[in-house]
Amino acid sequence: MTTVLALDYAAALIFALSGALAASRAQLDLVGFAFLASLTALGGGTIRDVLLDRNQVFWMADPTPLAIACGAAVVVFFTAHLLESRQMVLTWLDALALPIAVAAGVRAATELDQSVPIVLLMGVATGCFGGLLRDIVSNEVPLLIRPGKLYVTAALAGAGTALLSASLTSNPLVPVLACIAVTFVLRAGSLAYGWRLPAYKPRPPRS
Amino acid sequence: MTTVLALDYAAALIFALSGALAASRAQLDLVGFAFLASLTALGGGTIRDVLLDRNQVFWMADPTPLAIACGAAVVVFFTAHLLESRQMVLTWLDALALPIAVAAGVRAATELDQSVPIVLLMGVATGCFGGLLRDIVSNEVPLLIRPGKLYVTAALAGAGTALLSASLTSNPLVPVLACIAVTFVLRAGSLAYGWRLPAYKPRPPRS
Amino acid sequence: MTTVLALDYAAALIFALSGALAASRAQLDLVGFAFLASLTALGGGTIRDVLLDRNQVFWMADPTPLAIACGAAVVVFFTAHLLESRQMVLTWLDALALPIAVAAGVRAATELDQSVPIVLLMGVATGCFGGLLRDIVSNEVPLLIRPGKLYVTAALAGAGTALLSASLTSNPLVPVLACIAVTFVLRAGSLAYGWRLPAYKPRPPRS
Repeated sequence: MTTVLALDYAAALIFALSGALAASRAQLDLVGFAFLASLTALGGGTIRDVLLDRNQVFWMADPTPLAIACGAAVVVFFTAHLLESRQMVLTWLDALALPIAVAAGVRAATELDQSVPIVLLMGVATGCFGGLLRDIVSNEVPLLIRPGKLYVTAALAGAGTALLSASLTSNPLVPVLACIAVTFVLRAGSLAYGWRLPAYKPRPPRS
Repeated sequence: MTTVLALDYAAALIFALSGALAASRAQLDLVGFAFLASLTALGGGTIRDVLLDRNQVFWMADPTPLAIACGAAVVVFFTAHLLESRQMVLTWLDALALPIAVAAGVRAATELDQSVPIVLLMGVATGCFGGLLRDIVSNEVPLLIRPGKLYVTAALAGAGTALLSASLTSNPLVPVLACIAVTFVLRAGSLAYGWRLPAYKPRPPRS
Repeated sequence: MTTVLALDYAAALIFALSGALAASRAQLDLVGFAFLASLTALGGGTIRDVLLDRNQVFWMADPTPLAIACGAAVVVFFTAHLLESRQMVLTWLDALALPIAVAAGVRAATELDQSVPIVLLMGVATGCFGGLLRDIVSNEVPLLIRPGKLYVTAALAGAGTALLSASLTSNPLVPVLACIAVTFVLRAGSLAYGWRLPAYKPRPPRS
């Protein structure tokens, strides 16, 4: 199994759990869970593959991620009532899936010998668009635009770390792991400790 | 004319009427009606064709569905004021277009010899994404995520029926008609009589 | 540099400024500004290129528009506090970018010898989808569906003007400039003086 595929599988699983939780908040039925889980799990990688014009979208060449997403939907359907706060679990699952999906996007673009800005962007897009679609379709304010949290910033930092570490070592797993670690630490630190970059703050015009 | 094309035409017409009604609710002008009608009419099939990497998106090879959508927009623009409840007519037009679009998606994927999960997904995607785009762009809660109604479930059941009946008969029209019938009956029964699958219900955690 | 590319650059710059202003309204950080600026700047042209199946999406063949969008995001991040009304500036930047993007879409489709309806649609889609994505992702009511304003109408009129003037002159710049002028005048007149087409008005049913 290729590295991109393994990462796509792992990201699909965790994003699918978050999508199914969004479906539980919207009180959908089991098929609704599977739909929102699949959309979240496959959305980012699909947009990446369409943009990169890869031979086939990853889950059409091999529908395993689709099966993973549906399985995750079933599990969440029967267990979500055990959770204290579905919104918090959703947010943390999203925080776990984001780094893996960023690594998958960086890796897929690197294998196609794309330029540095495109590799960065594919990392960010693969990471961010699945959760964005989940939030838009389930009619919630996207996690990505919640003020005062690192989201796209964490994804971009992770993608940059992957590129940097790829130039320092020939071991192909190092960039993957470094990307996941940096993205997750930034996103988790932002959620847990409020880490953030300076946000735009309206100030009175200079007089 | 191929079967897929005929189904795409019919789904385009009915989805366009629903999109134009959404435009009337948003008080747009005639071109706004045509835009929202076209987006609804062509959205699902476009996503299907991009994912399947078909030679050309269906309405670019032959712009008839675009003309149909614009014609439907004109008709609705001058007649929508005659309706008692635009939201109810919109919902029922959507319920009529969904089954036809599901059949078109299943058929298009079958003709490209896709695997069973991909065929099912293409049916669901072709059916659901047009209405989803309409609802998101017109800033409404998507019909698809309204709790307690069969929507994706009806689409999936119809797509499954198409596959099943295709294995039982060689007449290519049987799967199409069976798919439309099953999807419509489930969706209509859900709207009229409240048919539904068990939805996720929050229960207190086990103590 | 080709005309399409020059137009894509210009539209990217101005749309990016509008996207960055949307990010400032959502109080994002600098990377959030760059994300929303890039989505707005590249969204319309990306959808056009995917639909037209052009060899490569324009900003992947040449990432300059991406750099332009990120530069615009930085500028807005440090200057948006100087503005009296960000929403008004956003609306007018959008009104300026729309005509240029419509011209880019018309031109790109014309160069691929597409039929008249497809050329018109590509103009409208390239013009409208960037701003639509910006508004949906930043959780605002899309400018495009605000009642009583010319938006899609202005885009369509501009695209039509481009086609008409292309048949009257062999100078390839005339259609571009005519398209930009007509689209901008209609959109600006709508914003400043309330120009509009008759909108759908609910009337009581005939008795």
